[in-house]
Amino acid sequence: MPFAPLKNDTFLRACWRQATDHTPVWLMRQAGRYLPEYLATRAKAGSFMGLATNVDHATEVTLQPLERFPLDAAILFSDILTVPDAMGLGLSFEAGEGPRFARPVRDEAGIDALAVPDMDKLRYVFDAVASIRRALDGRVPLIGFSGSPWTLACYMVEGAGSSDYRQVKSLLYSRPDLMHQLLSVNADAVAAYLNAQIDAGAQAVMVFDSWGGVLADGAFQAFSLAYTQRVLSQLRRDGADGQPVPRIVFTKGGGLWLEDMQPLDCEVLGLDWTVNLGQARARVGEGPRGKALQGNIDPNVLFAPPRRIEEEVAKVLNSFGRPHTDPDSTGATHVFNLGHGISQFTPPEHVAALVEAVHAQSRMLRA
Amino acid sequence: MPFAPLKNDTFLRACWRQATDHTPVWLMRQAGRYLPEYLATRAKAGSFMGLATNVDHATEVTLQPLERFPLDAAILFSDILTVPDAMGLGLSFEAGEGPRFARPVRDEAGIDALAVPDMDKLRYVFDAVASIRRALDGRVPLIGFSGSPWTLACYMVEGAGSSDYRQVKSLLYSRPDLMHQLLSVNADAVAAYLNAQIDAGAQAVMVFDSWGGVLADGAFQAFSLAYTQRVLSQLRRDGADGQPVPRIVFTKGGGLWLEDMQPLDCEVLGLDWTVNLGQARARVGEGPRGKALQGNIDPNVLFAPPRRIEEEVAKVLNSFGRPHTDPDSTGATHVFNLGHGISQFTPPEHVAALVEAVHAQSRMLRA
Repeated sequence: MPFAPLKNDTFLRACWRQATDHTPVWLMRQAGRYLPEYLATRAKAGSFMGLATNVDHATEVTLQPLERFPLDAAILFSDILTVPDAMGLGLSFEAGEGPRFARPVRDEAGIDALAVPDMDKLRYVFDAVASIRRALDGRVPLIGFSGSPWTLACYMVEGAGSSDYRQVKSLLYSRPDLMHQLLSVNADAVAAYLNAQIDAGAQAVMVFDSWGGVLADGAFQAFSLAYTQRVLSQLRRDGADGQPVPRIVFTKGGGLWLEDMQPLDCEVLGLDWTVNLGQARARVGEGPRGKALQGNIDPNVLFAPPRRIEEEVAKVLNSFGRPHTDPDSTGATHVFNLGHGISQFTPPEHVAALVEAVHAQSRMLRA
Repeated sequence: MPFAPLKNDTFLRACWRQATDHTPVWLMRQAGRYLPEYLATRAKAGSFMGLATNVDHATEVTLQPLERFPLDAAILFSDILTVPDAMGLGLSFEAGEGPRFARPVRDEAGIDALAVPDMDKLRYVFDAVASIRRALDGRVPLIGFSGSPWTLACYMVEGAGSSDYRQVKSLLYSRPDLMHQLLSVNADAVAAYLNAQIDAGAQAVMVFDSWGGVLADGAFQAFSLAYTQRVLSQLRRDGADGQPVPRIVFTKGGGLWLEDMQPLDCEVLGLDWTVNLGQARARVGEGPRGKALQGNIDPNVLFAPPRRIEEEVAKVLNSFGRPHTDPDSTGATHVFNLGHGISQFTPPEHVAALVEAVHAQSRMLRA
């Protein structure tokens, strides 16, 4: 059964640097703990992984924010650490502690034992993609995603979140050969994983290099960027319905390296809130090799009253400036988003104010 | 009694962008937990604040790394949070938890009650500066320091370290007027504090904007940089011995904003490891308005074997390139340092390898 035709293609058009009548908006972690209905579904599921591995639950929570807010895209509800979990590292989520691996990888034997996992172990993700795509019924496009090879490696070596990345950087600086071996496996696994999401119905894919920004200059290019490119070079160009699938790369803390990212085989670069959007546009957003830019309001803006949220939305939109409006060509475009995931403490009505402000103000910006 | 004449002025010369025969090196948090002799003194003192508030202990630990390594500068042993402690917020250090304030500041009443503290409450710091300066006996210059107004505000509002800066950013975005009021008090307090350190014998001063990099573009300039400049504009130019006192500003995560920092009334900009030193030199290191640059090796390099440490030192030195060598003019100079504080888990013999590599390689670079 073919998928329903897309009713709102604003997000995809902006990814392809085509003119749109408003700036599309979606929010990293838009399906999440700040929504009471999410907490209710999660309580039913019993745990985070119980939620992520159940197709019906994953479909339900993915669509929840769309019922509240006129967002221009949906994103698969899942976690970036599903791939190393499928490699056998034993993912769990302790209450209030974040993810943890039972069997972190820290030495040559551990890295030698790693391999691209059988994608059948991740079937629950691809089934969720197909289910969500059907449930969306063409309302907005569905974004699939994965952690970047380096970001996965951080968790695989540290075994959990870290404040100093001591274990993974000790390995990197002491045994760069082993780190390259680990990253090669990760890159091929992530590529297979994203391709399976594309086959299942994802209409765009995003690589989250959440921890690329902790690397030193030089190390970032060698140990993160090169492996993100290794993923991108293996991705299918067309989705299940024959439509081309745009690719987004988001490196938190990567603003200094935009010129290094420009040659990446992707359409969109995600930016955090430290980056001036106008400067980023001048650096990598214009011209035939230009990238669409996604971001970048500070999620903490959502704790301010709606009037202040509207002012901060205006600053971000005006910083990017007027997107190109020529229907016959491509040019600089902007996908509005947060600079990182939404906080669990965010008042949902403030999200409504943000989305409305982006739509209304960005139409005026084009008038 | 006048202070002893300075025997090694390499660090100060590099701060003033004068030619030196090697690249001077010191390490952020060089007096610290990675040294067994530090742990022994701390055990005698009973607690971190017991150590910092006792002049003899503070002098002893400040000099400890100089006994082991031929470092080109000493830095006062103290904490960045002494100033808000003197404001009455009640600083303590829980084992393994980092600093904590008993009375964080979160509302209008709390901010209205803040004032520049009586510097007599910080007498223990100024006494330590004078004692250390005497104990150094001219071996190397002594650096005084403070947290930046914004970085102090982060701790004052959050009450402790934070992963998301939700409280302080909520205040910033909801009530920017109150945040400006808080930062004004902090700036005037920091200026008085650094001036008293200069009067007591500090030969250079450094402002640590450890959390400037968590701010959004625009917010950084308004809420961090402007108040760092407010501090700098109030600082005495000459030290207790009539010598001019160079000023260093270090913003962790501030690499995107170097051009905004160039007009700062300071001589040196500190950089973290994400910044390419050669690019930073081209952006702000050359010409009559140029800044000396300090940094920026990843402290995690020190977990690698000495041979690898030497290779990474070479990368950092070569990234900056050959410093200027004209004895009759000023030009681009480099002060070698870590990109952030040294880890407590660092093997001291690896620090020796790093310092030796900087000295030896940087002499060759000039040859």
